[in-house]
Amino acid sequence: MPAEAIVNIGMLATMHDGEGVMGVLRDAAVVVDGGRIAWVGPSTAAPAADTVTDAGGAAVIPGFVDSHTHAVFGGDRTAEFDARMSGAKYTAGGIRSTVAATRAASTEELAERTQALLTEALRQGTTTAEIKSGYGLDVATERRLLEVAARFTDEVTFLGAHVVAPEMADRRGEYVDLVAGTMLEAAAPLSRWIDVFCEEGAFDVEETRRILAAGRDAGLGLRLHANQLTMSGAAALGVEMGAASIDHCTFLSDADVDALAGSDTVATFVPGAEFSTRQPYPRIERLRDAGVTWAIASDCNPGSSYTTSMPFCIALAVRDMGMTPGEAVRAATLGGAQALRREDVGRIAVGARADLVMLDAPDPVQLSYRPGVPLVDRVWRDGIETREWAPLG
Amino acid sequence: MPAEAIVNIGMLATMHDGEGVMGVLRDAAVVVDGGRIAWVGPSTAAPAADTVTDAGGAAVIPGFVDSHTHAVFGGDRTAEFDARMSGAKYTAGGIRSTVAATRAASTEELAERTQALLTEALRQGTTTAEIKSGYGLDVATERRLLEVAARFTDEVTFLGAHVVAPEMADRRGEYVDLVAGTMLEAAAPLSRWIDVFCEEGAFDVEETRRILAAGRDAGLGLRLHANQLTMSGAAALGVEMGAASIDHCTFLSDADVDALAGSDTVATFVPGAEFSTRQPYPRIERLRDAGVTWAIASDCNPGSSYTTSMPFCIALAVRDMGMTPGEAVRAATLGGAQALRREDVGRIAVGARADLVMLDAPDPVQLSYRPGVPLVDRVWRDGIETREWAPLG
Ligand SMILES: [Zn+2]
Ligand SMILES: [Zn+2]
Repeated sequence: MPAEAIVNIGMLATMHDGEGVMGVLRDAAVVVDGGRIAWVGPSTAAPAADTVTDAGGAAVIPGFVDSHTHAVFGGDRTAEFDARMSGAKYTAGGIRSTVAATRAASTEELAERTQALLTEALRQGTTTAEIKSGYGLDVATERRLLEVAARFTDEVTFLGAHVVAPEMADRRGEYVDLVAGTMLEAAAPLSRWIDVFCEEGAFDVEETRRILAAGRDAGLGLRLHANQLTMSGAAALGVEMGAASIDHCTFLSDADVDALAGSDTVATFVPGAEFSTRQPYPRIERLRDAGVTWAIASDCNPGSSYTTSMPFCIALAVRDMGMTPGEAVRAATLGGAQALRREDVGRIAVGARADLVMLDAPDPVQLSYRPGVPLVDRVWRDGIETREWAPLG
Repeated sequence: MPAEAIVNIGMLATMHDGEGVMGVLRDAAVVVDGGRIAWVGPSTAAPAADTVTDAGGAAVIPGFVDSHTHAVFGGDRTAEFDARMSGAKYTAGGIRSTVAATRAASTEELAERTQALLTEALRQGTTTAEIKSGYGLDVATERRLLEVAARFTDEVTFLGAHVVAPEMADRRGEYVDLVAGTMLEAAAPLSRWIDVFCEEGAFDVEETRRILAAGRDAGLGLRLHANQLTMSGAAALGVEMGAASIDHCTFLSDADVDALAGSDTVATFVPGAEFSTRQPYPRIERLRDAGVTWAIASDCNPGSSYTTSMPFCIALAVRDMGMTPGEAVRAATLGGAQALRREDVGRIAVGARADLVMLDAPDPVQLSYRPGVPLVDRVWRDGIETREWAPLG
């Protein structure tokens, strides 16, 4: 792969070295070699390279790291969304319809859909995406979902504990046994992470503890859906067990905030879910004061947040959660990387992956200043400019 | 121009004839001839045409009609937005900086920027856009702004009464005389509409009445920025004077709603402004009950709503204003046309302009179900598929 220099970058948001919360270098250049960042510095000092791309003063940021998606599923829930936004009450029927459609879909159909969603995300600047299972809820289908996810990303999460499988609704103890036993055994070789939806209607704190412990014993890292609708105590459990990230965090007690602040667990916000369910947004002021590390993710799923757009989530985080424009961009890049315990993405530094986004804007602040406008102009993933999310090699 | 048939449209939202608030026809086709819609009906019955485009089951809607933009200006206010979102207080300094930069810009620079914004809007589905002056605030510059606007649209609005020109801050009576006199004389031949920003800090109800009356005498239609920050009584004034549209309408009294309901004045909402200034959103329930006609527009401007995205405004209207997904799409198409008193746009009916948007989605509901995702796939304007906003012929 020949070395490529991107020069004349008006603002380079390194998230690493430089000015302010985004680590901005002005009039900068980046050299990419072998899929990695080989050099970062002033544009006038850029070393020679095989090809030179002129950014024309545009801003360049790290590719977004979307640490929370449910991007493998079947079916269509447009009519349900329409009914809900037209006044119908939300019911659990929605998830069931996705589970039924997902079980009925062929693996190739599922993979096609997943790749289309990832390509859509990439064109909006996402270069790393986590993908969860959780719409199979039986051993064979969960395994198929994880196989599909693993074709496209290393960040594969087993979420058998999304809800109790509909056919086992009156045997929840048995379902927990299944998830923590046979299903986990089938899932572990394909997964890096285990996740549990700890919430009224899904799994309680004790069930969550048991499933996470089984996952940890199977060698998986821990993640958690928690505190979305209530202060459940699940966030504190996640911190105690060393989870990489507690996701949603819509309602946090002061004790939760303190626990997060004293840990290396990331609080991951998914404002697209609050947007699409008309729920109140969480605020970040207490977390900022306490020194908690936070991230933004899309939560892309057909029920509560059917968006792939990290720029949209950034604009919401600024408008409705109290982040500054720079904090929000950082949360969508470096924050996501921290939530996945990755040091090779989410920043523009020598040795990091060459995952870069050139904006049709002079300043990354425009990602919230110009909401809804598709500002992602060009995307490099692993050092190669692309418009498609390719399967792993 | 050869006739083109677009067939195999999964859902055609005509806003005219068909099912529900969007007037949906399923499995439909449209024939375009000479820049107009020549035929609408079932795909299986489509007449022969010179070229046939297969929509593959995608949804087609009328091009968006953005009835409120300030898309002619100079300068850059990214840093001001950043400061404001980081806690700095909003001040009037912002508009002044745009006025200074706009006066300093050449007409060609302004036109280039306007065309870039319109092209950006078109790629997100806008095919009709109103453009206001209002960042000149002296006779020569207002005239230049109107000339630029008139290169790109027939919907040109004279907004000399945006704020009092900074150099006349202590001579506001004189400025009102100027706007209603010499400036109006220079503006009228280039404009279809006159508009006044009636609000604390801009113009009061009596000044507004005087300026609108002068505009009407000069042959212009009336529009109004009103009730953005307070229940000012301006909305009722606009209805009384026969304005085509009252824009903002963030705070409406019951009397305002009643006045609107008994009139052919449209209430135009600009939720992008509430989004970018962190103000509360208006709600549409009372207007729906009263039978008021409403529209959505972008309010594209560098201070309070720097978006060109009608899909973004639709998603906000559903999330935060209480519109159903269908009502919001209608408000952004037919509603905008009504706010501009146009019958040839905003609907898909025989004889209307062939301004069409094909979505990368099976259902226009996805414009709010999939927020932030660029779903506009292809755009036809005056019957020609295009990706650029061309100047008027
Ligand atoms: Zn989730
Ligand atoms: Zn305006």
